[in-house]
Amino acid sequence: MALPLRLMRYKLLIEYDGSRFAGWQLQKNDRSIQGELIAAATALFGNPPLELYGSGRTDAGVHARGQVAHLEIRGESRLRTDQIQMGLNDHLPHDINVLLVAKAAPRFHARFDAKERIYVYQISKRRDAFGKKHVWWVRDHLDVAAMKSAAALLVGFHNFRSFGSVPDPTQSTMVEMNRVEITEDADRIYITISASHFLWKMVRRMVGVLVEVGRKNLSNADILRFLEQPSPEPARLTAPPSGLFLEEVKY
Amino acid sequence: MALPLRLMRYKLLIEYDGSRFAGWQLQKNDRSIQGELIAAATALFGNPPLELYGSGRTDAGVHARGQVAHLEIRGESRLRTDQIQMGLNDHLPHDINVLLVAKAAPRFHARFDAKERIYVYQISKRRDAFGKKHVWWVRDHLDVAAMKSAAALLVGFHNFRSFGSVPDPTQSTMVEMNRVEITEDADRIYITISASHFLWKMVRRMVGVLVEVGRKNLSNADILRFLEQPSPEPARLTAPPSGLFLEEVKY
Repeated sequence: MALPLRLMRYKLLIEYDGSRFAGWQLQKNDRSIQGELIAAATALFGNPPLELYGSGRTDAGVHARGQVAHLEIRGESRLRTDQIQMGLNDHLPHDINVLLVAKAAPRFHARFDAKERIYVYQISKRRDAFGKKHVWWVRDHLDVAAMKSAAALLVGFHNFRSFGSVPDPTQSTMVEMNRVEITEDADRIYITISASHFLWKMVRRMVGVLVEVGRKNLSNADILRFLEQPSPEPARLTAPPSGLFLEEVKY
Repeated sequence: MALPLRLMRYKLLIEYDGSRFAGWQLQKNDRSIQGELIAAATALFGNPPLELYGSGRTDAGVHARGQVAHLEIRGESRLRTDQIQMGLNDHLPHDINVLLVAKAAPRFHARFDAKERIYVYQISKRRDAFGKKHVWWVRDHLDVAAMKSAAALLVGFHNFRSFGSVPDPTQSTMVEMNRVEITEDADRIYITISASHFLWKMVRRMVGVLVEVGRKNLSNADILRFLEQPSPEPARLTAPPSGLFLEEVKY
């Protein structure tokens, strides 16, 4: 009598330096985070995983300190979760690191079950010999108080169509924005942005617009205008990927 | 009547990520920090500098947050010191950054006038997707209390011949060690080492020996033995350059 096919599902917590990758999503002819993780899982388990999906697709050059993915394999692995973590890392390049592996419920889905995504964008106020791949160096003086005031306008339930696009035009561009917070220390400005979900390139366009407010080239009235009617301006101000980190995904 | 030749001397404070360089010292066929600075000064002033010397020669892969150099040019530059700083940076690659330029006394010498050099070595306790070029990842558990106890033995005036070599065998290997301090946070261990001067590879050999104490493979008695009689062991334990930062030079 054949046993019913058993599937095992795991939740992975992952950090990566996105500098050398074409982004999260699997590519035919380019190195991707998802592709490297699938290759590592295949090497570890001897078979390709049935599923390996992330909470979202970070773009080329974007980093993560807390990306979450689910991994489904056929059959029961004799490996403990900490052995799976170390085993995957043994097959991964140095700039992708599995921080934690936990057993997940059979229907857990890293993307569809995510309740909140938290991004942090790092701006450097000065040239930084160590920063090129991990910050956006903004040479102009930024008025941080003006940026904070503009950031507050973005919080709440708004139509973010000016800030990002959706693959399907019938899909909603309404997003509940939980936090847009700006903090600074001597050399850096950090912009923390969290929402249930984001449209494509939305975080980097929000950052680009806020920096332009800091430069005094845009005002709070412009922010309100972008939220009230479609505008091509935020897309032209898209901040570079280097400063962006997917910090945490909440379920 | 010819005016007497006027020379201008500047003190430079420099940070660099040493990952992509063959070290500080000018090389014929390789990229060096000193070589890039000379090229930048030549481009800025229209002539090669008469002198450009650092406080010391960091090895390939070693970084600096506070290297000091002096730069001597012929004639009076019409540029202010902040303009020289920005002008040099405009001609430097992204991983070398001049933090400050100040006018220096005519006889100021970055190497011979330095009173103290402070290095910090960064160890990571875990695999780190962002750390490969800036830490030494030590997989084994380290007994930090044992390392602190051994570190204390290295402070003071000792013969460091087991820890480093001198170019000239008649030169002294006696060094007054000011500080060997070990601090830690969740993921990192920092070893701060300061002395008037260091022998070649001495800092990395001290770190390698202290890590071996942390692994319980060496004891305080071994440290005392290395200080009392020549030993080839520290050289075999040389820590990788990636974790080492020249933090500050005092005059």
